[in-house]
Amino acid sequence: MDVSEWVEEIRAGDRRALGRALTEIENRRPAADALLRELFPFSGRSRTIGITGAAGVGKSTLVSRLVAAFRRQDKQVGVIAVDPSSPLSGGAVLGDRVRMLSHSGDPGVFIRSMATRGAVGGLAPATADMTLALAAAGLETVIIETVGAGQDEVDVVKLASVVVVVLTPSMGDDVQTMKAGLMEIADVFVINKSDQPGADRVASELEAMLSLGAENGGPRPSIVRTVASEDSGTGALMAAIEARPRGEKDKAAYWKQRLREMLRGRLAERVLTGIGDQELEEAAASVARRTLNPYDFVDETMNRFLGAQ
Amino acid sequence: MDVSEWVEEIRAGDRRALGRALTEIENRRPAADALLRELFPFSGRSRTIGITGAAGVGKSTLVSRLVAAFRRQDKQVGVIAVDPSSPLSGGAVLGDRVRMLSHSGDPGVFIRSMATRGAVGGLAPATADMTLALAAAGLETVIIETVGAGQDEVDVVKLASVVVVVLTPSMGDDVQTMKAGLMEIADVFVINKSDQPGADRVASELEAMLSLGAENGGPRPSIVRTVASEDSGTGALMAAIEARPRGEKDKAAYWKQRLREMLRGRLAERVLTGIGDQELEEAAASVARRTLNPYDFVDETMNRFLGAQ
Repeated sequence: MDVSEWVEEIRAGDRRALGRALTEIENRRPAADALLRELFPFSGRSRTIGITGAAGVGKSTLVSRLVAAFRRQDKQVGVIAVDPSSPLSGGAVLGDRVRMLSHSGDPGVFIRSMATRGAVGGLAPATADMTLALAAAGLETVIIETVGAGQDEVDVVKLASVVVVVLTPSMGDDVQTMKAGLMEIADVFVINKSDQPGADRVASELEAMLSLGAENGGPRPSIVRTVASEDSGTGALMAAIEARPRGEKDKAAYWKQRLREMLRGRLAERVLTGIGDQELEEAAASVARRTLNPYDFVDETMNRFLGAQ
Repeated sequence: MDVSEWVEEIRAGDRRALGRALTEIENRRPAADALLRELFPFSGRSRTIGITGAAGVGKSTLVSRLVAAFRRQDKQVGVIAVDPSSPLSGGAVLGDRVRMLSHSGDPGVFIRSMATRGAVGGLAPATADMTLALAAAGLETVIIETVGAGQDEVDVVKLASVVVVVLTPSMGDDVQTMKAGLMEIADVFVINKSDQPGADRVASELEAMLSLGAENGGPRPSIVRTVASEDSGTGALMAAIEARPRGEKDKAAYWKQRLREMLRGRLAERVLTGIGDQELEEAAASVARRTLNPYDFVDETMNRFLGAQ
């Protein structure tokens, strides 16, 4: 199919056309870049919200509540749910996603799951490109939900213009240790399941940590308590999200980083295609036999494609 | 200093010269590739052991026990300890490393810490290059220790020829959920603190999981119980490590992956240097203002450096 027609269908609200485009983009199939190029001009008007936190903190329920709240404002909502790849199949763990089916009859909601290791060319770049496609399809709010397990997930939610980190009262110790990278990027902390004991303690630990890191510029992150299972605190969370500045000045920094990543991925793609798998395998075998120095091979390959500079 | 002299000093056992080379490599400073090229021919005779697991399972103590055991075999040992970057400083959390100081008077032991976000050009590539330098310096065993929090750390330990995943009896639930990626790459599972209740349960959960995944080829991972704080089980762990095949046939696959990564990193480095920071920033600002399509910019940049192909 012609890419321009495809983009027109996506823009006209054809969700199957959008779904096929996301698959194309996620797997970096041939039409991906052409699609993205034509979708880009329509992608500027949506807001992205990153939601992360450890497994079991209730992210999916919270996201479902947010989706409903945005729908009450008559906003169309897209969700990209990044699931940890399962140990043996490599596929996504879809357990909690089932809850999201409560929105499945609503054409104003579009939900897409992707596995952490499913994205060709890296999770964060793929998520960024997929978010752009959702925005171009007219979804005014795009929620990116990830399990905050590692640097990869941090990189993914960092793409969002508002980052929400979800904790629970039982996670007091983790506030200081595990979630290092997350603490730095949070705009809003949610203490979910805040009807359980320990919510006050987690809140004061967060306050203490935030006062330590106060000098890093920008508005101070807010702390919101919710009980997502009862839809309690959703309004406060919505208000906290809306209160964050839209960050026009950050957009150039965002795109600088994205251009770097795009170049990195596409340069490698082009050169590795140019070399071909067989030549690469033969070189690797020679290196393994120690008859070829890998640093020589890399230099020669670079000179071949880039010219000696 | 001349790179050849530098390499000679490293080969002669000068640990300060080695330390400076590691800093050069970690930060991808100008001499890094020249050093690596000259170190490569001397790097083939060492074995790398990757050790990973969640915070608090006792990895550092276990590593210290292994180091002592290798020293009793008169083998020189290098350790690269990858620490999570701390929330506010961005530096490495060095807490447990202090224990390793028990080896600090021993010239046959070389320990290097690096922060997860310290490595320029990616954690796994930097670790691979640093491991090569340690091997070329005559360290016959190189242990790579990481906190197994995310995909990044999985990528790091995957570089090792033997991967040891450390659990504790209190981590039963995690066996099935969190450590997805780790389960697939483990050659040896250690149940540390196995004097605590629950060791049997963890062992049987592991057995169940391993029997599920039995068809993925290769020898089945072994399970070893240790109490590292009492040096109990260290011998069994050493035996389990030694029993793993040296994997000559995997070396070509390893190098195929490494050559890909090396090309990816160095291509981007060269092109981004060629563009210059100012041009990239101007392009990013134009994209943010929507007067430039990022996919056009990337295409034009690629054609400029690679030629239209």
